[in-house]
Amino acid sequence: MTETTDCVFCKIAAGQIPSHRLFEDADCFSFLDISPLAEGHTLLVPKRHFQSLADVPEDLLGRTFMALPRLVRAVTAATEAEGCNVLVNDGRVAGQVVPHVHIHVIPRLKGDSLGYRWNTGAYPEGRAEELCARIGQGLQ
Amino acid sequence: MTETTDCVFCKIAAGQIPSHRLFEDADCFSFLDISPLAEGHTLLVPKRHFQSLADVPEDLLGRTFMALPRLVRAVTAATEAEGCNVLVNDGRVAGQVVPHVHIHVIPRLKGDSLGYRWNTGAYPEGRAEELCARIGQGLQ
Repeated sequence: MTETTDCVFCKIAAGQIPSHRLFEDADCFSFLDISPLAEGHTLLVPKRHFQSLADVPEDLLGRTFMALPRLVRAVTAATEAEGCNVLVNDGRVAGQVVPHVHIHVIPRLKGDSLGYRWNTGAYPEGRAEELCARIGQGLQ
Repeated sequence: MTETTDCVFCKIAAGQIPSHRLFEDADCFSFLDISPLAEGHTLLVPKRHFQSLADVPEDLLGRTFMALPRLVRAVTAATEAEGCNVLVNDGRVAGQVVPHVHIHVIPRLKGDSLGYRWNTGAYPEGRAEELCARIGQGLQ
């Protein structure tokens, strides 16, 4: 474990940077990606700082992924998605931007033109709050 | 849980279809993807048949993902990769082909031209065995 004072996800975990939080438990937390590939694009993040999946203790990673079924159910239900991609970019070469392990949950709809082209976008004002509330309902 | 007699991954789990198996425990197993996106492209699969992540019991999914750190370490070490993508395509719209939950581990190298274009390939004869052996060493 290496806590880094300049890691944006460590700061989000600590509440020092605001986020559209979806849930939180002792090990991990989840929030809307600020640059969504699709509406409801969500991140699931272990609170402790590890750069690579290779470094995460297996019991901690297991407990983090235990949140995935209900997160997938909630995100797809809230967005009326027909499926989703779950993705971890591990390493800069693989597309990792923030060097703190994070799991993308990307809702998919027919004809969404996403493929794997990563056309990031931004929420119009207020939309993130709506989605946050709707997904939160599915997690209760 | 729905066992399906015509599911290719259920048949691989049962040993009815051969595979380049990397490891196996009570809950899950891992083997080389037969249509690799990169050398060492590996699948991690729960033995029980579920079509979607949304349907997998969270404790089973957690135990399955506990294998990921050592799998990532072993696959990247064996392929000398600089990183990897971990990906689940959940639902046909998301690119899921085999309707049995499976986790891709795709080694990445600088200049590999992969991006997210999914240029699948095939191993030349004997190469899959070599990689299987090398990754297996890292898992011991």
